[in-house]
Amino acid sequence: MNVSMLMDLYELTMAYSYFKSSRNEISTFEVFIRNLPENRNFLVSAGIDDIIEIIINFRFEEDDIKYLRSLKIFSEDFLEYLKKFKFTGDLYAMPNGQIYFPNEPVIRITAPRIQAQMFETIVLNQFNFQSMIASKCARITLASRNIPCVDFSPRRDHGIDSAIKVAKVSYMCGFIGTSNLLAGKLYNIPVYGTMAHSYIMSFDSEEEAFREFLKRFSEPVLLIDTYDTIEGAKKVIKLLKEGYRIKGVRIDSGDLVKLSKEVKKIFENEGFGNIKIFLSGDLDEYVIENILNEGAVADFFGIGTKMGTSSDAPYLNGVYKLVEDEYGFKIKTSPQKLTLPGKKQVYRIYENGLMKEDIIVLEDDKINGEPLLKKYIENGKLVERIALESSRKLFMENLLKIPPYLKNIKTQEMVYPVKISKKLLEIQESLIKSF
Amino acid sequence: MNVSMLMDLYELTMAYSYFKSSRNEISTFEVFIRNLPENRNFLVSAGIDDIIEIIINFRFEEDDIKYLRSLKIFSEDFLEYLKKFKFTGDLYAMPNGQIYFPNEPVIRITAPRIQAQMFETIVLNQFNFQSMIASKCARITLASRNIPCVDFSPRRDHGIDSAIKVAKVSYMCGFIGTSNLLAGKLYNIPVYGTMAHSYIMSFDSEEEAFREFLKRFSEPVLLIDTYDTIEGAKKVIKLLKEGYRIKGVRIDSGDLVKLSKEVKKIFENEGFGNIKIFLSGDLDEYVIENILNEGAVADFFGIGTKMGTSSDAPYLNGVYKLVEDEYGFKIKTSPQKLTLPGKKQVYRIYENGLMKEDIIVLEDDKINGEPLLKKYIENGKLVERIALESSRKLFMENLLKIPPYLKNIKTQEMVYPVKISKKLLEIQESLIKSF
Repeated sequence: MNVSMLMDLYELTMAYSYFKSSRNEISTFEVFIRNLPENRNFLVSAGIDDIIEIIINFRFEEDDIKYLRSLKIFSEDFLEYLKKFKFTGDLYAMPNGQIYFPNEPVIRITAPRIQAQMFETIVLNQFNFQSMIASKCARITLASRNIPCVDFSPRRDHGIDSAIKVAKVSYMCGFIGTSNLLAGKLYNIPVYGTMAHSYIMSFDSEEEAFREFLKRFSEPVLLIDTYDTIEGAKKVIKLLKEGYRIKGVRIDSGDLVKLSKEVKKIFENEGFGNIKIFLSGDLDEYVIENILNEGAVADFFGIGTKMGTSSDAPYLNGVYKLVEDEYGFKIKTSPQKLTLPGKKQVYRIYENGLMKEDIIVLEDDKINGEPLLKKYIENGKLVERIALESSRKLFMENLLKIPPYLKNIKTQEMVYPVKISKKLLEIQESLIKSF
Repeated sequence: MNVSMLMDLYELTMAYSYFKSSRNEISTFEVFIRNLPENRNFLVSAGIDDIIEIIINFRFEEDDIKYLRSLKIFSEDFLEYLKKFKFTGDLYAMPNGQIYFPNEPVIRITAPRIQAQMFETIVLNQFNFQSMIASKCARITLASRNIPCVDFSPRRDHGIDSAIKVAKVSYMCGFIGTSNLLAGKLYNIPVYGTMAHSYIMSFDSEEEAFREFLKRFSEPVLLIDTYDTIEGAKKVIKLLKEGYRIKGVRIDSGDLVKLSKEVKKIFENEGFGNIKIFLSGDLDEYVIENILNEGAVADFFGIGTKMGTSSDAPYLNGVYKLVEDEYGFKIKTSPQKLTLPGKKQVYRIYENGLMKEDIIVLEDDKINGEPLLKKYIENGKLVERIALESSRKLFMENLLKIPPYLKNIKTQEMVYPVKISKKLLEIQESLIKSF
């Protein structure tokens, strides 16, 4: 399966028209978000690693050409052109793990028009989804107050590509690992997991199930809520007294605040206060904040469905827009869809180590501050690959620079200031007038 | 990338324990949903085609074994066992396109315990996601009142696997095609699409863009809302008067009710009432019902983000539970997570051609009605492959059998009756007492 073909048909009909009309001038397209989804105070860049790989390896294979020919809408000379297709342009992007805001260009592609237009769907598919997950995970990392989180989402993620990339992106955003073996293997992420309720139910008694498991693994985490959590904890105490070594227990259902406190107390009273408590079951940043405020005891969180689907904001509305070509600046004036013209850069200004404001400017207008868009592809050649560990490091550093008012998991009155340079606004205004 | 490895680590730790303890007896696991998501009155089975292929082709490859060895938790004899792993059991499922309800087993796998446990994650990953999308699409098909719908979602779907399967599942549920070329190629689904706003913006004027496009394609759909929809429509009239042939126009922003009516009137007044109107832009079943009630004029709908992410209910909580093994019936008694024991079948009773009620029974308790679970794999051998066109046919037939009170897109007071046989309830009760 050649993922280059993940494009909307219109990209090829447009390309065909440009090809036939010789309208293949150098053009610049930018990806940006129009509005923050509900309850989001900032967003996190992600998926740039995959986008880079897809673009530098972008090809049409023999059977793709055959399929396109079968549609009977393209001429042979165009299909010949596609056979030799190769990206020769530039790609700038905010690195994975960078914090960004609405209207800021996050990805910028400059290339002959046909090429640049070709990537719209695949770039948006990967960016919208991965950035949405990263932005969700950032919130969970903030809410969990340094209690380590593990990705438990694969069974509810939207398919295979989703499951492996949710594992990757959650790790980038501070999670310590995943239950997902495929992701563990592909990305070298630590893997976690022990047993399901079905394991307990496969033995005559819960105690027998625990004993069997302890024969095979040293210091496992035992699942204690299959029948009755408190009774489960008491069985663990019995085994601990027999000398078995257990890392911790997992509670996956019921009143997590009440049960985690009671279980912790049972262990402490018996001299096993070192036993870790692993909580899971429909957790997200809202639940975590609530249960921690109510005194839940937790050493680890297993985070599944609501993170892996970003359930309270299950899509990002990132768009891919033409901003400039050899004929000049370009804007779209559809209602509520006005765009900013020109090839742009975003500068970030810090104060006392915290993010103070961003300024969107035309690329050539250098100003004092940190430029957020970095060069990843130049003339079709890879400039720099993005490693997961360095993205994770960047994200964790950025987390310390986010001003406190943006760290609240509820929407804030105060929004982060994103300024647009005077020059840019003047160009936009003159373009609107010209219609 | 071997998708067999898309499993949670705990499936292999459990398998290892079963392997070492010789607890590999024949067991049965079933997939079911506990509750309907908000606003859903029924659900639609989907993804069974992929699950069958994944299971009959399930293998561990050399580099998977190498990775598992590197985790340092499994013995060599177990890794040898995995190298030769092959499914030898049975799989029953409700075919793609079947309507189902909470508590009904939708997939049933009977196999040696290690095998059956192994598929939990991949089965749920594919089923939860695809069935969620199918259930969403069924609602959109109902709301759109025979106006054809096309999948426009790839740019917001959660990754590549999601995008191709959303195209497939939406087609199964009555959509006429997709914008997604990869899905078109893989599944032989009709593809649709014409131009983006960036195409219009790539020319000096909207009219020039239309003219260039008309040179290349016969009877295209022209996008008329880049600058001003009414002005766009007038330019189309001009071209029609010059003799160009145009299939229709697309409106993607603004007040779709008002604009579609006005545009239709403009075309009719000029004698071009045959020009089709294609509406898109944040459509889902709620918006479609509203705009049709308000008199919007539409010949086609392009459906994107909210369908492809099932945004109002972005996950299904399908679970995979042990129900029986050689030692007898099995249940789980965690709070709110009580399960139904035993290998089951679901019978559907019809009245006047409409679905009247379903009855869940133990497999051996034959009753008068249509059995919904069909055999797809027997002793590890494929019994029947599922073809997309036959799933589409089944879904369209089922749509006619759904009673009117379930067809409303809002949640109904009246729920569809799903009965549980007396024998099944008695067994459940006696198992609860035995704890």
